[in-house]
Amino acid sequence: MKSYSEQYAAYGNALEEQLRLECGRRFVPGSAVGEAARYSLMAGGKRVRGVLTLAFCDLLDGDRNTAAAFGAAVEMLHCYSLIHDDLPCMDDAATRRGQPSCHKKFGEATALLAADALLTEAFEVIAASGAQNAQAAAAVACLARAAGGRGMVYGQELDLAFEQKQPSEQELTLIHTHKTGDLIHAAGLLGVLASAHTPQDEEECGAYTRAVGLVFQIVDDVLDCTSTAQQMGKPVGSDAAAGKITFATLKGPAAAMQQAQQLTERACERLTGVYGGRAEFLVELARSLAARKS
Amino acid sequence: MKSYSEQYAAYGNALEEQLRLECGRRFVPGSAVGEAARYSLMAGGKRVRGVLTLAFCDLLDGDRNTAAAFGAAVEMLHCYSLIHDDLPCMDDAATRRGQPSCHKKFGEATALLAADALLTEAFEVIAASGAQNAQAAAAVACLARAAGGRGMVYGQELDLAFEQKQPSEQELTLIHTHKTGDLIHAAGLLGVLASAHTPQDEEECGAYTRAVGLVFQIVDDVLDCTSTAQQMGKPVGSDAAAGKITFATLKGPAAAMQQAQQLTERACERLTGVYGGRAEFLVELARSLAARKS
Repeated sequence: MKSYSEQYAAYGNALEEQLRLECGRRFVPGSAVGEAARYSLMAGGKRVRGVLTLAFCDLLDGDRNTAAAFGAAVEMLHCYSLIHDDLPCMDDAATRRGQPSCHKKFGEATALLAADALLTEAFEVIAASGAQNAQAAAAVACLARAAGGRGMVYGQELDLAFEQKQPSEQELTLIHTHKTGDLIHAAGLLGVLASAHTPQDEEECGAYTRAVGLVFQIVDDVLDCTSTAQQMGKPVGSDAAAGKITFATLKGPAAAMQQAQQLTERACERLTGVYGGRAEFLVELARSLAARKS
Repeated sequence: MKSYSEQYAAYGNALEEQLRLECGRRFVPGSAVGEAARYSLMAGGKRVRGVLTLAFCDLLDGDRNTAAAFGAAVEMLHCYSLIHDDLPCMDDAATRRGQPSCHKKFGEATALLAADALLTEAFEVIAASGAQNAQAAAAVACLARAAGGRGMVYGQELDLAFEQKQPSEQELTLIHTHKTGDLIHAAGLLGVLASAHTPQDEEECGAYTRAVGLVFQIVDDVLDCTSTAQQMGKPVGSDAAAGKITFATLKGPAAAMQQAQQLTERACERLTGVYGGRAEFLVELARSLAARKS
Protein backbone atom coordinates (compact mmCIF):
# COMPACT_ATOMS: atom_id res chain seq x y z
CA MET A 1 0.00 0.00 0.00
CA LYS A 2 1.39 3.39 -1.06
CA SER A 3 1.83 6.19 1.48
CA TYR A 4 -0.11 9.41 0.90
CA SER A 5 2.88 11.18 -0.61
CA GLU A 6 3.79 8.21 -2.81
CA GLN A 7 0.20 8.07 -4.04
CA TYR A 8 0.13 11.82 -4.68
CA ALA A 9 3.37 11.53 -6.66
CA ALA A 10 1.95 8.60 -8.66
CA TYR A 11 -1.16 10.63 -9.54
CA GLY A 12 1.01 13.63 -10.40
CA ASN A 13 3.22 11.55 -12.68
CA ALA A 14 0.24 10.03 -14.45
CA LEU A 15 -1.10 13.53 -15.10
CA GLU A 16 2.24 14.92 -16.30
CA GLU A 17 2.54 11.99 -18.69
CA GLN A 18 -0.98 12.51 -20.02
CA LEU A 19 -0.41 16.25 -20.39
CA ARG A 20 2.86 15.66 -22.23
CA LEU A 21 1.03 13.34 -24.62
CA GLU A 22 -1.77 15.85 -25.18
CA CYS A 23 0.71 18.68 -25.87
CA GLY A 24 2.29 16.53 -28.57
CA ARG A 25 -1.03 15.60 -30.14
CA ARG A 26 -2.99 18.79 -30.04
CA PHE A 27 -0.66 21.32 -31.65
CA VAL A 28 1.15 21.55 -34.96
CA PRO A 29 4.91 20.95 -34.54
CA GLY A 30 6.77 24.27 -34.53
CA SER A 31 3.68 26.24 -33.59
CA ALA A 32 4.46 29.19 -31.29
CA VAL A 33 0.99 28.89 -29.81
CA GLY A 34 1.69 25.23 -29.06
CA GLU A 35 5.00 26.17 -27.45
CA ALA A 36 3.30 28.81 -25.29
CA ALA A 37 0.59 26.34 -24.26
CA ARG A 38 3.23 23.75 -23.35
CA TYR A 39 5.25 26.37 -21.41
CA SER A 40 2.30 27.22 -19.20
CA LEU A 41 0.84 23.74 -18.97
CA MET A 42 4.08 21.95 -18.07
CA ALA A 43 5.27 24.62 -15.60
CA GLY A 44 4.33 22.45 -12.66
CA GLY A 45 1.88 23.38 -9.99
CA LYS A 46 0.27 20.97 -7.60
CA ARG A 47 -2.18 19.48 -10.12
CA VAL A 48 -4.77 19.42 -7.34
CA ARG A 49 -7.66 19.32 -9.79
CA GLY A 50 -6.34 16.39 -11.80
CA VAL A 51 -5.39 14.55 -8.60
CA LEU A 52 -8.98 14.97 -7.37
CA THR A 53 -10.22 13.38 -10.60
CA LEU A 54 -7.89 10.39 -10.23
CA ALA A 55 -8.58 9.98 -6.51
CA PHE A 56 -12.37 9.96 -6.89
CA CYS A 57 -12.02 7.48 -9.74
CA ASP A 58 -9.94 5.21 -7.48
CA LEU A 59 -12.38 5.65 -4.59
CA LEU A 60 -15.09 4.19 -6.84
CA ASP A 61 -12.87 1.69 -8.67
CA GLY A 62 -13.35 3.48 -11.96
CA ASP A 63 -11.37 3.40 -15.18
CA ARG A 64 -7.96 4.99 -14.63
CA ASN A 65 -7.25 5.72 -18.29
CA THR A 66 -10.51 7.59 -18.63
CA ALA A 67 -9.79 9.47 -15.41
CA ALA A 68 -6.28 10.39 -16.58
CA ALA A 69 -7.77 11.96 -19.71
CA PHE A 70 -10.52 13.73 -17.74
CA GLY A 71 -7.90 14.92 -15.21
CA ALA A 72 -5.69 16.26 -17.99
CA ALA A 73 -8.71 18.08 -19.45
CA VAL A 74 -9.47 19.84 -16.17
CA GLU A 75 -5.80 20.83 -15.79
CA MET A 76 -5.77 22.24 -19.34
CA LEU A 77 -8.89 24.20 -18.58
CA HIS A 78 -7.39 25.51 -15.33
CA CYS A 79 -4.24 26.51 -17.21
CA TYR A 80 -6.21 28.50 -19.81
CA SER A 81 -7.90 30.42 -17.00
CA LEU A 82 -4.54 31.34 -15.45
CA ILE A 83 -3.13 32.59 -18.77
CA HIS A 84 -6.15 34.82 -19.42
CA ASP A 85 -6.18 35.95 -15.76
CA ASP A 86 -2.59 37.14 -16.09
CA LEU A 87 -3.23 39.26 -19.21
CA PRO A 88 -2.82 43.04 -18.90
CA CYS A 89 -6.57 43.66 -19.19
CA MET A 90 -7.17 41.28 -16.24
CA ASP A 91 -4.68 40.97 -13.35
CA ASP A 92 -1.68 42.16 -15.41
CA ALA A 93 0.64 39.65 -13.74
CA ALA A 94 4.27 39.53 -14.88
CA THR A 95 5.07 36.22 -13.18
CA ARG A 96 3.37 32.91 -12.53
CA ARG A 97 4.94 30.16 -10.43
CA GLY A 98 8.19 32.13 -10.27
CA GLN A 99 8.52 32.34 -14.07
CA PRO A 100 7.49 35.01 -16.57
CA SER A 101 3.75 34.75 -17.25
CA CYS A 102 2.77 33.42 -20.66
CA HIS A 103 2.15 36.81 -22.31
CA LYS A 104 5.41 38.21 -20.87
CA LYS A 105 7.32 35.39 -22.53
CA PHE A 106 5.39 34.94 -25.79
CA GLY A 107 3.50 38.20 -26.30
CA GLU A 108 -0.16 38.90 -25.69
CA ALA A 109 -1.57 37.58 -28.96
CA THR A 110 0.19 34.23 -28.68
CA ALA A 111 -0.76 33.86 -25.01
CA LEU A 112 -4.39 34.68 -25.77
CA LEU A 113 -4.48 32.06 -28.51
CA ALA A 114 -2.59 29.46 -26.45
CA ALA A 115 -5.21 29.72 -23.73
CA ASP A 116 -8.06 29.61 -26.27
CA ALA A 117 -6.57 26.43 -27.69
CA LEU A 118 -6.12 24.83 -24.25
CA LEU A 119 -9.77 25.52 -23.43
CA THR A 120 -10.94 24.11 -26.75
CA GLU A 121 -8.65 21.08 -26.67
CA ALA A 122 -9.73 20.21 -23.12
CA PHE A 123 -13.07 19.21 -24.62
CA GLU A 124 -11.45 17.21 -27.37
CA VAL A 125 -9.33 15.37 -24.79
CA ILE A 126 -12.59 14.23 -23.17
CA ALA A 127 -14.21 13.35 -26.49
CA ALA A 128 -11.12 11.38 -27.57
CA SER A 129 -10.55 9.72 -24.19
CA GLY A 130 -11.94 6.35 -25.19
CA ALA A 131 -14.64 6.76 -22.53
CA GLN A 132 -18.09 5.45 -23.36
CA ASN A 133 -20.16 8.02 -25.22
CA ALA A 134 -22.49 8.55 -22.26
CA GLN A 135 -19.51 9.19 -19.97
CA ALA A 136 -17.90 11.56 -22.46
CA ALA A 137 -21.11 13.52 -22.99
CA ALA A 138 -21.66 13.81 -19.23
CA ALA A 139 -18.05 14.89 -18.69
CA VAL A 140 -18.28 17.58 -21.37
CA ALA A 141 -21.46 18.93 -19.79
CA CYS A 142 -19.90 18.84 -16.32
CA LEU A 143 -16.74 20.69 -17.35
CA ALA A 144 -18.50 23.24 -19.55
CA ARG A 145 -21.05 24.07 -16.86
CA ALA A 146 -18.31 24.55 -14.26
CA ALA A 147 -16.19 26.74 -16.53
CA GLY A 148 -18.81 28.79 -18.37
CA GLY A 149 -21.08 31.76 -17.89
CA ARG A 150 -22.66 30.47 -14.67
CA GLY A 151 -19.40 28.99 -13.36
CA MET A 152 -15.77 30.06 -13.39
CA VAL A 153 -16.25 32.94 -15.85
CA TYR A 154 -19.07 34.30 -13.67
CA GLY A 155 -16.72 34.08 -10.69
CA GLN A 156 -14.11 36.09 -12.56
CA GLU A 157 -16.73 38.68 -13.43
CA LEU A 158 -17.78 38.95 -9.77
CA ASP A 159 -14.14 39.23 -8.73
CA LEU A 160 -13.57 42.13 -11.14
CA ALA A 161 -16.78 43.83 -10.00
CA PHE A 162 -15.80 43.63 -6.33
CA GLU A 163 -12.50 45.36 -7.02
CA GLN A 164 -14.69 48.46 -7.17
CA LYS A 165 -16.55 47.88 -3.89
CA GLN A 166 -16.00 45.93 -0.66
CA PRO A 167 -17.70 42.54 -0.65
CA SER A 168 -19.33 41.04 2.43
CA GLU A 169 -18.30 37.56 3.59
CA GLN A 170 -21.34 36.17 1.80
CA GLU A 171 -20.40 37.90 -1.44
CA LEU A 172 -16.80 36.74 -1.06
CA THR A 173 -18.02 33.17 -0.69
CA LEU A 174 -20.15 33.59 -3.83
CA ILE A 175 -17.14 34.85 -5.81
CA HIS A 176 -14.97 31.93 -4.78
CA THR A 177 -17.71 29.33 -5.13
CA HIS A 178 -17.63 30.19 -8.81
CA LYS A 179 -14.12 31.50 -9.44
CA THR A 180 -12.24 28.54 -7.98
CA GLY A 181 -14.89 26.29 -6.43
CA ASP A 182 -16.82 25.24 -9.52
CA LEU A 183 -13.78 23.84 -11.30
CA ILE A 184 -12.56 21.99 -8.20
CA HIS A 185 -16.06 20.56 -7.85
CA ALA A 186 -16.03 19.51 -11.52
CA ALA A 187 -12.61 17.90 -11.07
CA GLY A 188 -13.90 15.50 -8.42
CA LEU A 189 -17.09 14.86 -10.35
CA LEU A 190 -15.12 13.94 -13.47
CA GLY A 191 -13.52 11.16 -11.43
CA VAL A 192 -16.96 9.99 -10.36
CA LEU A 193 -18.12 10.11 -14.00
CA ALA A 194 -15.15 7.92 -14.99
CA SER A 195 -16.60 5.24 -12.66
CA ALA A 196 -19.79 3.28 -12.20
CA HIS A 197 -21.52 5.38 -9.54
CA THR A 198 -24.74 6.19 -7.71
CA PRO A 199 -26.41 9.56 -7.17
CA GLN A 200 -25.11 9.37 -3.58
CA ASP A 201 -21.54 9.16 -4.89
CA GLU A 202 -22.10 12.38 -6.82
CA GLU A 203 -23.55 14.01 -3.72
CA GLU A 204 -20.72 12.92 -1.42
CA CYS A 205 -18.19 14.07 -3.98
CA GLY A 206 -19.96 17.40 -4.18
CA ALA A 207 -19.97 17.95 -0.41
CA TYR A 208 -16.26 17.15 -0.18
CA THR A 209 -15.12 19.20 -3.18
CA ARG A 210 -17.25 22.21 -2.21
CA ALA A 211 -15.53 22.24 1.19
CA VAL A 212 -12.07 21.68 -0.28
CA GLY A 213 -12.61 24.45 -2.83
CA LEU A 214 -13.54 26.98 -0.19
CA VAL A 215 -10.70 25.92 2.11
CA PHE A 216 -8.28 26.18 -0.80
CA GLN A 217 -9.24 29.83 -1.28
CA ILE A 218 -9.22 30.71 2.40
CA VAL A 219 -5.71 29.26 2.77
CA ASP A 220 -4.61 31.16 -0.36
CA ASP A 221 -5.80 34.39 1.19
CA VAL A 222 -4.13 33.63 4.53
CA LEU A 223 -0.85 32.75 2.83
CA ASP A 224 -0.93 36.05 0.95
CA CYS A 225 -0.85 37.71 4.40
CA THR A 226 1.58 35.43 6.18
CA SER A 227 3.89 33.75 3.66
CA THR A 228 7.01 34.94 1.81
CA ALA A 229 7.34 35.54 -1.92
CA GLN A 230 9.95 32.78 -2.10
CA GLN A 231 7.57 30.22 -0.59
CA MET A 232 4.75 31.23 -2.89
CA GLY A 233 6.68 31.72 -6.14
CA LYS A 234 4.76 34.96 -6.63
CA PRO A 235 4.53 38.37 -4.94
CA VAL A 236 2.71 38.29 -1.57
CA GLY A 237 0.93 40.90 0.52
CA SER A 238 -0.60 42.15 -2.72
CA ASP A 239 -4.17 41.76 -1.48
CA ALA A 240 -3.70 43.92 1.60
CA ALA A 241 -1.60 46.44 -0.34
CA ALA A 242 -4.36 46.76 -2.91
CA GLY A 243 -6.91 47.20 -0.10
CA LYS A 244 -8.54 44.02 -1.32
CA ILE A 245 -11.05 42.30 0.93
CA THR A 246 -10.23 38.60 1.36
CA PHE A 247 -11.18 35.92 3.88
CA ALA A 248 -7.93 36.77 5.69
CA THR A 249 -8.46 40.54 5.83
CA LEU A 250 -12.18 40.14 6.63
CA LYS A 251 -11.85 38.09 9.80
CA GLY A 252 -8.10 37.96 10.42
CA PRO A 253 -5.75 35.13 9.41
CA ALA A 254 -6.17 33.10 12.62
CA ALA A 255 -9.97 33.01 12.54
CA ALA A 256 -9.92 32.30 8.82
CA MET A 257 -7.58 29.35 9.36
CA GLN A 258 -9.79 28.04 12.12
CA GLN A 259 -12.76 28.09 9.77
CA ALA A 260 -10.70 26.28 7.15
CA GLN A 261 -9.78 23.57 9.67
CA GLN A 262 -13.40 23.10 10.72
CA LEU A 263 -14.64 22.85 7.14
CA THR A 264 -11.91 20.33 6.39
CA GLU A 265 -12.59 18.10 9.39
CA ARG A 266 -16.32 18.10 8.78
CA ALA A 267 -15.80 17.11 5.11
CA CYS A 268 -13.34 14.36 6.07
CA GLU A 269 -15.65 12.89 8.68
CA ARG A 270 -18.52 12.81 6.22
CA LEU A 271 -16.47 11.09 3.51
CA THR A 272 -15.04 8.54 5.97
CA GLY A 273 -18.53 7.87 7.28
CA VAL A 274 -19.59 6.71 3.82
CA TYR A 275 -16.46 5.16 2.35
CA GLY A 276 -14.44 4.16 5.45
CA GLY A 277 -10.74 3.47 4.86
CA ARG A 278 -11.10 3.81 1.10
CA ALA A 279 -11.41 7.57 1.66
CA GLU A 280 -8.01 7.80 3.35
CA PHE A 281 -6.17 9.45 0.46
CA LEU A 282 -8.88 12.09 0.01
CA VAL A 283 -8.90 12.77 3.76
CA GLU A 284 -5.14 13.28 3.74
CA LEU A 285 -5.44 15.44 0.65
CA ALA A 286 -8.00 17.76 2.27
CA ARG A 287 -5.87 18.05 5.42
CA SER A 288 -2.67 18.76 3.53
CA LEU A 289 -4.39 21.43 1.42
CA ALA A 290 -5.59 23.10 4.63
CA ALA A 291 -2.10 22.87 6.15
CA ARG A 292 -0.09 23.87 3.07
CA LYS A 293 2.53 26.61 3.30
CA SER A 294 2.70 27.53 -0.40
CA MET B 1 -41.86 24.16 -51.48
CA LYS B 2 -40.00 27.18 -50.11
CA SER B 3 -37.88 29.37 -52.38
CA TYR B 4 -34.17 29.63 -51.60
CA SER B 5 -34.53 32.94 -49.81
CA GLU B 6 -37.57 31.76 -47.85
CA GLN B 7 -35.64 28.66 -46.78
CA TYR B 8 -32.60 30.74 -45.82
CA ALA B 9 -34.82 33.02 -43.75
CA ALA B 10 -36.43 30.01 -42.06
CA TYR B 11 -33.02 28.60 -41.15
CA GLY B 12 -31.89 32.01 -39.95
CA ASN B 13 -34.98 32.41 -37.77
CA ALA B 14 -34.53 28.96 -36.25
CA LEU B 15 -30.95 29.88 -35.35
CA GLU B 16 -31.85 33.28 -33.91
CA GLU B 17 -34.48 31.62 -31.76
CA GLN B 18 -32.06 28.96 -30.54
CA LEU B 19 -29.36 31.54 -29.82
CA ARG B 20 -31.84 33.71 -27.91
CA LEU B 21 -32.74 30.67 -25.81
CA GLU B 22 -29.10 29.82 -25.16
CA CYS B 23 -28.30 33.41 -24.13
CA GLY B 24 -31.06 33.21 -21.56
CA ARG B 25 -29.95 29.85 -20.21
CA ARG B 26 -26.20 30.15 -20.13
CA PHE B 27 -25.60 33.36 -18.20
CA VAL B 28 -26.62 34.67 -14.81
CA PRO B 29 -29.31 37.41 -15.10
CA GLY B 30 -27.69 40.83 -14.77
CA SER B 31 -24.23 39.55 -15.66
CA ALA B 32 -22.22 42.10 -17.67
CA VAL B 33 -20.36 39.23 -19.33
CA GLY B 34 -23.70 37.75 -20.34
CA GLU B 35 -24.82 41.10 -21.72
CA ALA B 36 -21.59 41.44 -23.71
CA ALA B 37 -21.95 37.91 -25.08
CA ARG B 38 -25.54 38.62 -26.10
CA TYR B 39 -24.54 41.94 -27.70
CA SER B 40 -22.02 40.22 -29.96
CA LEU B 41 -23.98 37.02 -30.56
CA MET B 42 -27.28 38.68 -31.47
CA ALA B 43 -25.72 41.42 -33.64
CA GLY B 44 -26.79 39.66 -36.80
CA GLY B 45 -24.48 38.44 -39.47
CA LYS B 46 -25.39 35.95 -42.14
CA ARG B 47 -25.29 32.86 -39.86
CA VAL B 48 -23.70 30.98 -42.75
CA ARG B 49 -22.18 28.37 -40.44
CA GLY B 50 -25.41 27.56 -38.63
CA VAL B 51 -27.31 27.54 -41.92
CA LEU B 52 -24.82 24.98 -43.28
CA THR B 53 -25.51 22.77 -40.25
CA LEU B 54 -29.28 22.96 -40.77
CA ALA B 55 -29.05 22.48 -44.53
CA PHE B 56 -26.86 19.36 -44.30
CA CYS B 57 -29.19 17.97 -41.68
CA ASP B 58 -32.15 18.52 -44.03
CA LEU B 59 -30.23 17.05 -46.97
CA LEU B 60 -29.93 13.81 -44.97
CA ASP B 61 -33.34 14.00 -43.28
CA GLY B 62 -31.75 14.37 -39.86
CA ASP B 63 -33.10 15.65 -36.57
CA ARG B 64 -33.81 19.38 -36.86
CA ASN B 65 -33.81 20.07 -33.12
CA THR B 66 -30.39 18.50 -32.77
CA ALA B 67 -29.14 20.45 -35.78
CA ALA B 68 -30.51 23.72 -34.38
CA ALA B 69 -28.50 23.16 -31.20
CA PHE B 70 -25.38 22.15 -33.13
CA GLY B 71 -25.81 25.15 -35.42
CA ALA B 72 -26.16 27.48 -32.44
CA ALA B 73 -22.98 25.99 -30.97
CA VAL B 74 -20.98 26.68 -34.12
CA GLU B 75 -22.31 30.25 -34.26
CA MET B 76 -21.35 30.79 -30.60
CA LEU B 77 -17.89 29.48 -31.30
CA HIS B 78 -17.57 31.72 -34.36
CA CYS B 79 -18.69 34.70 -32.28
CA TYR B 80 -16.04 34.03 -29.61
CA SER B 81 -13.36 34.03 -32.31
CA LEU B 82 -14.53 37.41 -33.64
CA ILE B 83 -14.49 38.99 -30.17
CA HIS B 84 -10.95 37.80 -29.46
CA ASP B 85 -9.84 38.74 -33.00
CA ASP B 86 -11.01 42.30 -32.44
CA LEU B 87 -9.05 42.75 -29.17
CA PRO B 88 -6.22 45.33 -29.14
CA CYS B 89 -3.53 42.62 -28.99
CA MET B 90 -4.98 41.00 -32.12
CA ASP B 91 -6.56 43.09 -34.92
CA ASP B 92 -7.45 46.02 -32.66
CA ALA B 93 -10.77 46.58 -34.42
CA ALA B 94 -13.03 49.35 -33.14
CA THR B 95 -16.10 48.21 -35.08
CA ARG B 96 -17.76 44.97 -36.09
CA ARG B 97 -20.81 44.83 -38.35
CA GLY B 98 -21.07 48.61 -38.19
CA GLN B 99 -21.30 48.67 -34.38
CA PRO B 100 -18.65 49.17 -31.69
CA SER B 101 -16.70 45.95 -31.20
CA CYS B 102 -17.35 44.09 -27.96
CA HIS B 103 -14.33 45.44 -26.06
CA LYS B 104 -15.03 48.99 -27.23
CA LYS B 105 -18.50 48.75 -25.75
CA PHE B 106 -17.88 46.67 -22.62
CA GLY B 107 -14.16 46.98 -21.93
CA GLU B 108 -11.41 44.47 -22.60
CA ALA B 109 -11.81 42.28 -19.53
CA THR B 110 -15.54 41.79 -20.02
CA ALA B 111 -15.11 41.13 -23.75
CA LEU B 112 -12.35 38.59 -23.08
CA LEU B 113 -14.55 36.76 -20.58
CA ALA B 114 -17.67 36.96 -22.77
CA ALA B 115 -15.80 35.21 -25.57
CA ASP B 116 -14.33 32.64 -23.18
CA ALA B 117 -17.85 31.88 -21.96
CA LEU B 118 -19.25 31.60 -25.50
CA LEU B 119 -16.51 29.12 -26.42
CA THR B 120 -17.12 27.08 -23.28
CA GLU B 121 -20.90 27.16 -23.52
CA ALA B 122 -20.81 26.08 -27.18
CA PHE B 123 -19.73 22.68 -25.91
CA GLU B 124 -22.44 22.58 -23.29
CA VAL B 125 -25.04 23.45 -25.91
CA ILE B 126 -23.98 20.30 -27.76
CA ALA B 127 -23.90 18.19 -24.60
CA ALA B 128 -27.34 19.46 -23.55
CA SER B 129 -28.87 19.24 -27.05
CA GLY B 130 -30.81 16.05 -26.39
CA ALA B 131 -28.79 14.34 -29.13
CA GLN B 132 -27.85 10.71 -28.58
CA ASN B 133 -24.64 10.39 -26.59
CA ALA B 134 -22.71 9.06 -29.57
CA GLN B 135 -23.85 12.02 -31.68
CA ALA B 136 -23.00 14.50 -28.95
CA ALA B 137 -19.53 13.01 -28.39
CA ALA B 138 -18.81 13.06 -32.12
CA ALA B 139 -20.04 16.64 -32.42
CA VAL B 140 -17.85 17.81 -29.51
CA ALA B 141 -14.82 16.15 -31.12
CA CYS B 142 -15.66 17.65 -34.51
CA LEU B 143 -16.08 21.19 -33.19
CA ALA B 144 -13.06 21.08 -30.86
CA ARG B 145 -10.78 19.73 -33.58
CA ALA B 146 -11.90 22.44 -36.00
CA ALA B 147 -11.46 25.23 -33.47
CA GLY B 148 -8.34 24.16 -31.58
CA GLY B 149 -4.57 24.08 -31.91
CA ARG B 150 -4.57 22.35 -35.30
CA GLY B 151 -7.63 24.20 -36.56
CA MET B 152 -8.88 27.76 -36.28
CA VAL B 153 -6.38 28.84 -33.62
CA TYR B 154 -3.55 27.54 -35.79
CA GLY B 155 -4.95 29.56 -38.69
CA GLN B 156 -4.94 32.68 -36.54
CA GLU B 157 -1.35 32.01 -35.56
CA LEU B 158 -0.36 31.61 -39.23
CA ASP B 159 -2.22 34.80 -40.09
CA LEU B 160 -0.32 36.75 -37.42
CA ALA B 161 3.00 35.24 -38.55
CA PHE B 162 2.41 36.22 -42.18
CA GLU B 163 1.84 39.82 -41.23
CA GLN B 164 5.64 39.85 -40.92
CA LYS B 165 6.39 38.29 -44.31
CA GLN B 166 4.64 37.87 -47.65
CA PRO B 167 2.88 34.52 -48.01
CA SER B 168 2.77 32.60 -51.28
CA GLU B 169 -0.60 31.51 -52.70
CA GLN B 170 -0.01 28.08 -51.15
CA GLU B 171 0.68 29.60 -47.73
CA LEU B 172 -2.33 31.86 -48.06
CA THR B 173 -4.49 28.83 -48.77
CA LEU B 174 -3.04 27.08 -45.70
CA ILE B 175 -3.89 30.08 -43.49
CA HIS B 176 -7.47 30.24 -44.68
CA THR B 177 -7.99 26.49 -44.67
CA HIS B 178 -7.49 26.72 -40.93
CA LYS B 179 -8.51 30.27 -40.04
CA THR B 180 -11.94 30.18 -41.66
CA GLY B 181 -12.15 26.87 -43.51
CA ASP B 182 -12.00 24.44 -40.59
CA LEU B 183 -15.01 25.93 -38.81
CA ILE B 184 -17.08 26.11 -42.01
CA HIS B 185 -16.15 22.48 -42.62
CA ALA B 186 -17.19 21.57 -39.08
CA ALA B 187 -20.47 23.45 -39.51
CA GLY B 188 -21.53 21.23 -42.40
CA LEU B 189 -20.27 18.12 -40.68
CA LEU B 190 -22.31 18.90 -37.56
CA GLY B 191 -25.42 18.75 -39.76
CA VAL B 192 -24.29 15.38 -41.07
CA LEU B 193 -23.68 14.21 -37.48
CA ALA B 194 -27.24 15.25 -36.56
CA SER B 195 -28.45 12.72 -39.16
CA ALA B 196 -28.14 9.02 -39.93
CA HIS B 197 -25.31 9.09 -42.47
CA THR B 198 -22.70 7.10 -44.37
CA PRO B 199 -18.96 7.76 -44.69
CA GLN B 200 -19.72 9.00 -48.23
CA ASP B 201 -22.05 11.65 -46.79
CA GLU B 202 -19.18 12.91 -44.63
CA GLU B 203 -16.89 12.95 -47.64
CA GLU B 204 -19.34 14.81 -49.88
CA CYS B 205 -19.99 17.31 -47.13
CA GLY B 206 -16.25 17.80 -46.73
CA ALA B 207 -15.66 18.42 -50.44
CA TYR B 208 -18.47 20.97 -50.56
CA THR B 209 -17.62 22.84 -47.34
CA ARG B 210 -13.90 22.96 -48.17
CA ALA B 211 -14.73 24.63 -51.49
CA VAL B 212 -17.27 26.98 -49.91
CA GLY B 213 -14.81 27.94 -47.16
CA LEU B 214 -12.10 28.89 -49.63
CA VAL B 215 -14.54 30.76 -51.88
CA PHE B 216 -15.87 32.63 -48.85
CA GLN B 217 -12.37 33.94 -48.11
CA ILE B 218 -11.52 34.76 -51.72
CA VAL B 219 -14.72 36.79 -52.04
CA ASP B 220 -13.97 38.52 -48.73
CA ASP B 221 -10.58 39.58 -50.07
CA VAL B 222 -12.04 40.76 -53.37
CA LEU B 223 -14.76 42.76 -51.61
CA ASP B 224 -12.10 44.47 -49.49
CA CYS B 225 -10.67 45.78 -52.81
CA THR B 226 -13.86 46.55 -54.66
CA SER B 227 -16.66 47.25 -52.18
CA THR B 228 -17.61 50.30 -50.13
CA ALA B 229 -17.47 50.63 -46.35
CA GLN B 230 -21.24 51.12 -46.26
CA GLN B 231 -21.87 47.84 -48.08
CA MET B 232 -19.50 45.95 -45.81
CA GLY B 233 -20.35 47.51 -42.45
CA LYS B 234 -16.60 47.82 -41.80
CA PRO B 235 -13.67 49.78 -43.25
CA VAL B 236 -12.54 48.50 -46.67
CA GLY B 237 -9.30 48.76 -48.59
CA SER B 238 -7.54 47.99 -45.33
CA ASP B 239 -5.71 44.97 -46.76
CA ALA B 240 -4.09 46.87 -49.61
CA ALA B 241 -3.37 49.87 -47.39
CA ALA B 242 -1.61 47.60 -44.91
CA GLY B 243 0.37 46.02 -47.76
CA LYS B 244 -1.32 42.75 -46.86
CA ILE B 245 -1.14 39.91 -49.37
CA THR B 246 -4.59 38.43 -50.05
CA PHE B 247 -6.09 36.32 -52.82
CA ALA B 248 -7.23 39.58 -54.40
CA THR B 249 -3.86 41.38 -54.27
CA LEU B 250 -1.96 38.21 -55.26
CA LYS B 251 -3.70 37.54 -58.57
CA GLY B 252 -5.95 40.55 -59.05
CA PRO B 253 -9.68 40.73 -58.18
CA ALA B 254 -10.92 39.48 -61.57
CA ALA B 255 -8.77 36.33 -61.66
CA ALA B 256 -9.54 35.64 -57.98
CA MET B 257 -13.28 35.88 -58.68
CA GLN B 258 -12.90 33.57 -61.66
CA GLN B 259 -11.24 30.98 -59.42
CA ALA B 260 -14.03 31.38 -56.87
CA GLN B 261 -16.65 30.75 -59.57
CA GLN B 262 -14.85 27.64 -60.81
CA LEU B 263 -14.50 26.20 -57.31
CA THR B 264 -18.17 26.89 -56.66
CA GLU B 265 -19.44 25.30 -59.86
CA ARG B 266 -17.29 22.21 -59.40
CA ALA B 267 -18.56 21.76 -55.81
CA CYS B 268 -22.17 22.22 -56.89
CA GLU B 269 -21.87 19.72 -59.73
CA ARG B 270 -20.40 17.15 -57.40
CA LEU B 271 -23.10 17.57 -54.78
CA THR B 272 -25.90 17.47 -57.36
CA GLY B 273 -24.32 14.34 -58.87
CA VAL B 274 -24.80 12.53 -55.58
CA TYR B 275 -27.96 14.05 -54.10
CA GLY B 276 -29.80 15.36 -57.18
CA GLY B 277 -32.57 17.89 -56.52
CA ARG B 278 -32.23 17.50 -52.75
CA ALA B 279 -28.98 19.48 -53.00
CA GLU B 280 -30.72 22.49 -54.51
CA PHE B 281 -30.59 24.70 -51.42
CA LEU B 282 -26.88 24.01 -50.87
CA VAL B 283 -26.18 24.70 -54.55
CA GLU B 284 -27.97 28.04 -54.33
CA LEU B 285 -26.16 28.80 -51.07
CA ALA B 286 -22.72 28.21 -52.60
CA ARG B 287 -23.60 30.37 -55.62
CA SER B 288 -24.98 33.20 -53.54
CA LEU B 289 -21.91 33.21 -51.29
CA ALA B 290 -19.72 33.47 -54.40
CA ALA B 291 -21.88 36.29 -55.79
CA ARG B 292 -22.38 38.24 -52.55
CA LYS B 293 -21.67 41.97 -52.47
CA SER B 294 -21.17 42.32 -48.69
